[in-house]
Amino acid sequence: MKNLIVASTSTLHGENYLAYLFPEIEKLFQNCDTILFIPFARPNGISHDEYTQIVSDAFSKVNKKIQGLHAFSNKIEAIEKAQGIFVGGGNTFVLLTNLYHFNLLDPLKTVIENGTPYLGTSAGSNITGLSIKTTNDMPIVYPPSFDALQILNFNLNPHYLDPLPGSTHMGETRETRINEFHTQNNIPVLGLREGSWLRVTDNKTILEGNLTARLFTKAYEPKEISPKTNLADLIS
Amino acid sequence: MKNLIVASTSTLHGENYLAYLFPEIEKLFQNCDTILFIPFARPNGISHDEYTQIVSDAFSKVNKKIQGLHAFSNKIEAIEKAQGIFVGGGNTFVLLTNLYHFNLLDPLKTVIENGTPYLGTSAGSNITGLSIKTTNDMPIVYPPSFDALQILNFNLNPHYLDPLPGSTHMGETRETRINEFHTQNNIPVLGLREGSWLRVTDNKTILEGNLTARLFTKAYEPKEISPKTNLADLIS
Repeated sequence: MKNLIVASTSTLHGENYLAYLFPEIEKLFQNCDTILFIPFARPNGISHDEYTQIVSDAFSKVNKKIQGLHAFSNKIEAIEKAQGIFVGGGNTFVLLTNLYHFNLLDPLKTVIENGTPYLGTSAGSNITGLSIKTTNDMPIVYPPSFDALQILNFNLNPHYLDPLPGSTHMGETRETRINEFHTQNNIPVLGLREGSWLRVTDNKTILEGNLTARLFTKAYEPKEISPKTNLADLIS
Repeated sequence: MKNLIVASTSTLHGENYLAYLFPEIEKLFQNCDTILFIPFARPNGISHDEYTQIVSDAFSKVNKKIQGLHAFSNKIEAIEKAQGIFVGGGNTFVLLTNLYHFNLLDPLKTVIENGTPYLGTSAGSNITGLSIKTTNDMPIVYPPSFDALQILNFNLNPHYLDPLPGSTHMGETRETRINEFHTQNNIPVLGLREGSWLRVTDNKTILEGNLTARLFTKAYEPKEISPKTNLADLIS
């Protein structure tokens, strides 16, 4: 009964928040009047209220009401009763630490597997993978574990960035980082470029958007995956 | 008795490994015939032996012998007896996890505070700060803690990168990431650009190289620090 959109980014350069995704979001949340928003990732360190307001403003254009999870005293019940759930981007470590703090990993996983529509962007997408070990974020807080929701049977690298031609910067490229990951871990990693998303249902994990995605596996060369590919057929 | 070089990067673009630093390195290690090299950070996932060989080749030009710590069965004793220590770059999480695994944090801190000359580059510099919470690296392994050697009383961000003008990428800039850090932590962070290093002795932490460094504190605007500034006067 899974029903998810797992997006690389919330916003394309020069566009409004979520604008490119709204046609898909409307379909995902077609049976929801109210969507539960989880603001814990706090992009730029903005408050939970500020973040929830931004999301509320964006969703008002499609006549959806937004409730921020931070405002519920019983957060587990809020998740269990949610018609739909959106987890926005920001810092993945802060997001995951909060989910552990409030014991929300298991309830979230359960409702997602039982069919509650889920939208994730950036950090909110990262946590649908096996672990957050392929996040790009700075580890500004120490979570009790790097294990994530494990809805997907692989890891994501959102905002995937190809090496910059002619760069003189000596920091690691994204591909180098993921190769280093594979010296320590065996699981596949999907580099999801901005503008791409995964449409996840029970037996399908379809790459959507116009761009290819880059699939890294331990034993093989990285591979470019075409839009409309079912990743469930590739990764088992 | 502290005596350290803490460098942003090992290598400048288009130059040989450590080339720009060797005049300083020769002074730091002037009384050492043999230097203990800690290869745990494994850049690009290369083996400990491969990494040690690269360092050995570079130091042979200044007639210094290199021993890799991985080859010692008694690693604590190797640290205690070392004439000088070099910790090279790579993945900070892998480096710190290994230091915890072999119980090397305390012995390392003790010998550094007692005057054993220490060279760090990139990940090897990161661990001289209070924690690794401002590393740029991917969290590919889960260390028992993010706490580091705490030789410096602030955190470093090596390979500090200014925002790219005109970038259309929606991932966070380095400055955004450090600002997010300060929503969760109070300690100062020094953004150390490639080609810069800190020369640390008992009462002095001098910024060296030709570039300014960017100092981030929680309550104030970021500040550009000039070369030859003593950071011990600024951060207490």
